[in-house]
Parts: sequence; structure tokens; C-alpha cells
Amino acid sequence: MFENSQETKTNLSELGEFGLIDHLTKNFAPKLTSTKKAIGDDAAILDFEDNQCIVTTDLLVEGVHFDLAYMPLKHLGYKAVMVNASDVYAMNGKATQITVSIAVSNRFPVEALEELYSGIELAANIYNIDVIGGDTTSSTSGLVISITALGIAKSEDVVYRSGAKPNDFLVVSGDLGAAYMGLQVLEREKQVFKANPNAQPDLDQYTYLIERQLKPEARKDIPPLLKELDVKPTSMIDISDGLSSEVIHLCKNSKTGVNLFEEKIPLDPAVISVCEEFKIDSTTIALSGGEDYELLFTISQEDYDKIKGNPNLTIIGHMTEENEGMHLITRANTKIPLIARGWNSMEKEEEED
Amino acid sequence: MFENSQETKTNLSELGEFGLIDHLTKNFAPKLTSTKKAIGDDAAILDFEDNQCIVTTDLLVEGVHFDLAYMPLKHLGYKAVMVNASDVYAMNGKATQITVSIAVSNRFPVEALEELYSGIELAANIYNIDVIGGDTTSSTSGLVISITALGIAKSEDVVYRSGAKPNDFLVVSGDLGAAYMGLQVLEREKQVFKANPNAQPDLDQYTYLIERQLKPEARKDIPPLLKELDVKPTSMIDISDGLSSEVIHLCKNSKTGVNLFEEKIPLDPAVISVCEEFKIDSTTIALSGGEDYELLFTISQEDYDKIKGNPNLTIIGHMTEENEGMHLITRANTKIPLIARGWNSMEKEEEED
Repeated sequence: MFENSQETKTNLSELGEFGLIDHLTKNFAPKLTSTKKAIGDDAAILDFEDNQCIVTTDLLVEGVHFDLAYMPLKHLGYKAVMVNASDVYAMNGKATQITVSIAVSNRFPVEALEELYSGIELAANIYNIDVIGGDTTSSTSGLVISITALGIAKSEDVVYRSGAKPNDFLVVSGDLGAAYMGLQVLEREKQVFKANPNAQPDLDQYTYLIERQLKPEARKDIPPLLKELDVKPTSMIDISDGLSSEVIHLCKNSKTGVNLFEEKIPLDPAVISVCEEFKIDSTTIALSGGEDYELLFTISQEDYDKIKGNPNLTIIGHMTEENEGMHLITRANTKIPLIARGWNSMEKEEEED
Repeated sequence: MFENSQETKTNLSELGEFGLIDHLTKNFAPKLTSTKKAIGDDAAILDFEDNQCIVTTDLLVEGVHFDLAYMPLKHLGYKAVMVNASDVYAMNGKATQITVSIAVSNRFPVEALEELYSGIELAANIYNIDVIGGDTTSSTSGLVISITALGIAKSEDVVYRSGAKPNDFLVVSGDLGAAYMGLQVLEREKQVFKANPNAQPDLDQYTYLIERQLKPEARKDIPPLLKELDVKPTSMIDISDGLSSEVIHLCKNSKTGVNLFEEKIPLDPAVISVCEEFKIDSTTIALSGGEDYELLFTISQEDYDKIKGNPNLTIIGHMTEENEGMHLITRANTKIPLIARGWNSMEKEEEED
């Protein structure tokens, strides 16, 4: 798609050895005082002083995690940063640096990589993250992006998945399911476009959903908000694979059960209406959709008053004793076992680190 | 190759979501006190106390950086760790943690990934490195390995590429060119094998070369050796792309020239003899071969007595004023300009970080 939208195309080999890297990274001047040395040596040097260091990494593979038919490269670069930053926020930390490694085939012109890097740069600027290094190499086929994010937190502020206690409230930021429905809309448009390349889609009513899919925002604001509210979550995780799968992770790591209330799950009106259009159950989408990059956490009941009424946060359930099991309480007030409905395939397989 | 050597083969999908990761990483218990939390949360948590943090990353792509026809997967895993650890040692630091991300197609059985991980585990154990996380995902084609290494150093011990001064001695560890010639031997055997699959190659005389190619060892020993000798290099880099390219990096970053003496370049007798066999100039191989993972550094002349006679270290030249240029002084005592003879193609393109 982007190959036709470029006015000029420069072959990757034209820039020569190191030329490409210099060209792509020339805007990445470090801004943080913790970045002592960024790109330009064998390794970067960071100084976290009395903070602990948070490290997470993700690999995005063309044809598996993204489809360039509807994912503009700039958005892809932005999203790749978000996916990693989100994991840092899920530790209740602050994302500070990333390394970016890219394997790319020669079918990509230099201008395509510039687009990708412009998205990375935009995300880095908005999220106050330094790009400190990486690797660019050729690929025999598609595009692969590997990002490692580093962050900081005081040791007393770090939140693991394992600290939830029975009776803790289960809380989620934002709303769920929109990114997945955005993908459904984009995939439908791709089929329409295949059948009729002259069709002009009217996607106005899907703007929020498509934005959530193509330009997700990690919840950088939640750790400082919690600090401000004087709430330290007892456990936390980010929602990348779908709510049910993440709730189960918290329960298993914390050795608790859970009661999750269907009626409490926050859904944007656009999700509800598109689910009706697609004849899909919106609860199923929220539970299994994934890519929301919201934060899911538990708090002690005594912190209830501190978060009550905050428009960013919704209480969706409470933790129980482990032997009570993990359940969804439906709107009809029936109790059904919660199962990981994520995409049980290699495509979605991920090692959390 | 490995596909035939496996007695049992388990399809990747049989282990289900997360099962594969649990299976592959079950041996990776953290050993270092700086690793507060390794695999099993959104991110790893490290505590470097009063050390600076060193970060480097590399991407290895099948068909570009390795050929599974002669690279056993266990060796590949080992080498992938070495490539990254070497960059940490080149900052005069100690490698402490790695994250490992792998994209792999379904043609690989679980047993193949076990082999790969066993090499990673072996390297991590020998080099005292914790595996703290990563990501495993499917790939539409070949195997891609992305490793990020973290390390530590006191701020006063960190050595950059940029500190060399005119008159400093240029020093290299070990010997050069063997890894490249090992690759030539393996590629020749691959052609022989293609022509006659029953041929039994006799590779005994090439053992050293092949080991240097398939199982390189990063110079973990050099930073503590220098400390023991009370020598702090003025600049340092590791030799991944070939001596000439790395010397040029030191000169450009330090704004110096160099006189590099051909007769001083350390070559193993096996390199000299195989170069005669292949009718290739051994100096060219040392200058351009790459993948030696030795350390190249500069020291002040007053430190000469401290390293003199050390069997691990060879003085191969000295830095000059920048305007004197970068030169190789040949055995015939002619002075020729040093040029980056590395592989000027995307295949070898790397962004040092």
C-alpha cells in the first residue's frame, strides 16, 4: 500500500553501510539525564541512581502482528513503542529508554523506514523516552521489529502480578474491546477494497475504534495518578491479550480467585454499536479482544474512597479465596467459570518478562 | 539439517499458549543478586545499585547472519549470547542479564527450539548471565533471534570509543581472522555435501577455525584483566566487522589518525595455513573478516610496561594526529590508507548502540 503512496523511492543499498542508521537515527538526541550515552558506541550507558531498572521486550512480525495493507508504517512505529511502554507502566514504573531493532527486506525503500522511524520518534517524544540504540539488518522476507524498553521505579513502588489478596477490588483503566473491533472494521474494509479498489470507505463512525487499533496509547498517566491518589495497587498487569486472560494471570500469580461482574466492564458506546452491527457479543470482545493496553490492577478495599468516582478507573470485580475459583458474574446473575479466551495459537503466544 | 537429526518431533502448537514459553524457560532461574524479578511478570526488575547500566541489542536473521545448513541450533543460541555480551565487555563492563526474543516458523519442532535454548542456557551459565525475559512468536518464514544484553560498570570504569589520544598504543586481544576462515571451510563443505551427500569431510585440521566461527567466546576475561593490570583503556570496541572497520571507528570517534602495522597483526598458524590453501591474503582476512569478537583498545604509552608480554594482548600500532590520516604500514614498509573493507552491504549493516 505504502509502496504506491511514495513519490520518491530510495533503494536501501544507496545509503551504504552505516549510512542508513545515521540517517534514520539522526533525530534521536537523548533528553533524559539518566541517558549517559545513547547511539554511537558498542552499547548505551544509563545511570538509574537509586531506582530499580525495569526491562521488557516485544517482537512484532509482519503477517503475524500487523498487516501493512491497513497499518501505516508511522502508526506501526508508534504502536511498537506503546506495546513495550505499556509493560513498564504495568510495573507501576516510568518508561525511560528503548532500543529498536529492525529486520527489513529490500522491497522497502528508505522512505518507508523513515515513516516507521517517524512514528517511533513521535511516540518517544510524547512519552519522554530516549531511543538509545538498536540494530538494522536485512531480512529475507517481511518486516520484524524488536523493541526493548527500560524504565525506572523506586523499589517500594514496583507492583508485581502476585500481590493481590482476597477481597481486593479489581480495577481497570479506560474502556475495553475497541482495538479489537477497530481491527474487524479494517479487515472488512480490506475485503471490500479487494473486491472493488475504487470503493471509498466511510469510516467516520469507526474513528475511535480504528484509532484504538492503529494508534493505541499506553497508560503513562496511571502510575503518577495512583501516586497522587496515594494508592499502591496490590497487583497489576497490562491488557494486551484480553481482559479474561489478564485477570487469570493476576489470580494465578497471586493465588486468589475472582468474581468479575459483566455489567461493570467499561465499554465505549462505539464498541456496543459496532458489536451489534457485527452481531458479536460485546462482553466476549472485552474479555478476549486484546490490544487495549489499559492497566488492570487490584487495590485494597480500604483504598476504595481514594479511587471512587475517578473517570479513568472502573471497579469491575473483587478477588476471592483461591479455592472459590475464577468466575464471571453475568448480567443475568449466573456465575460462569472464567477461561482464557485469548487467541490460543502461536500468533498470540507471548512470554511475559 | 537438524530436522532429520531429531528422533522425536513435537509440533509447536501442541504445547498451547504460554506452554512453550514455560517449557523453554523452566531452567532459567536467576542467579545474580541484581536480578530482583526475571521471567513471569510484565517486565523484569533489576537493581544495579551504584553501577551504571550498559545496554546493547542485536538481531540475528536466518539466511542473513546464519545458515542452519551448517550452524547447529545449540551453537547458534550460544553465539547469539556472545555477540551481545561482547558489546558489554567492549564498554569495559560485566554482562549481567539478557532478554531473548525469537520469531520462528512452524517448520521448527519444539525439539529444535530446545536445542537453541540449550545453547543460550549454556552461554548464560558459563558467562554468569541471567535470562530475564523475552518473547516468542511465530514467523511467516525463517528464524529471527533478538537479544538485548544488560551489564554493569562503575561510571569511572566505562570506556567509550572516543577517548583515544595521539601516541596511544593500539592493542588487540587474541588473534584475528579465524572465524571468517572457519566460515569459508564450512561453506566449501556445504558445496561438497550438496554434490555428494555421502562425502565424509575430514575437518580435523580446521577445528580451531570452525570453533571460532560456530562457538565464539566473548572476552569476558579482558575487563577484569585490565583492572588487575591497573590499565584503563582510553578507548575500546569489539571486533565484529573486521579489524580495519573497527580501527576506523576508534579513530573517527576519537578524532585521531592511526598507524597499524601489518606485521604485528596476531594470526593463528591455522589461519595462515588455510589462507595459503584458499589462496587468500591473511592480512586481508584479519582486516576484513569479522566475527572475531576480540577486543580492540587503546592505552596510554605510560601503561606499556603493564601489558608488555601479556600473552592475551598484542600491540598492533599507535594512534596519530587526525590530520596524519589512517594507515596500514605493510611488511614492505609502505604506507597505505586504511579503508573499511567490511562487507559493504545490508547484510553486515549494523547500528552500534
